[in-house]
Amino acid sequence: MFGQAVRRLRHSKGMSQEVLADHADIHRTYIGDVERGTRNIALLNMVKIAAALGLTLSRLIQEMERQPDDGSETPR
Amino acid sequence: MFGQAVRRLRHSKGMSQEVLADHADIHRTYIGDVERGTRNIALLNMVKIAAALGLTLSRLIQEMERQPDDGSETPR
Repeated sequence: MFGQAVRRLRHSKGMSQEVLADHADIHRTYIGDVERGTRNIALLNMVKIAAALGLTLSRLIQEMERQPDDGSETPR
Repeated sequence: MFGQAVRRLRHSKGMSQEVLADHADIHRTYIGDVERGTRNIALLNMVKIAAALGLTLSRLIQEMERQPDDGSETPR
């Protein structure tokens, strides 16, 4: 869910994974892993990603909490 | 900062570290480490701790963001 929120917000800002990774000073493959949900991301990296998206972490987490969790329907 | 928010909210609910650890299904020594800020806590454990405090994670993070960061003055 966190990864989906990151991806959605990144797209809404027209940022590539490369640009987000660069702004957050995190490796691009790590951003990809986070977006796919294959990482149990730690607090410090969450703060970095939120900042790179121009958000507070609480806003990013709110976005995560707004999403449905089941993934059974994935609208485009 | 996250640990300070956890400790503050835990105290406000009159919970011991033991009770919080039990509710969150996390070891008590880990809770202690988190509260002292010696752990770069991962998302899944943050969600567990928030739930054990009866909060959403975004509320817990908001509490963290409200706190001053410097620690130069530590009111009792």
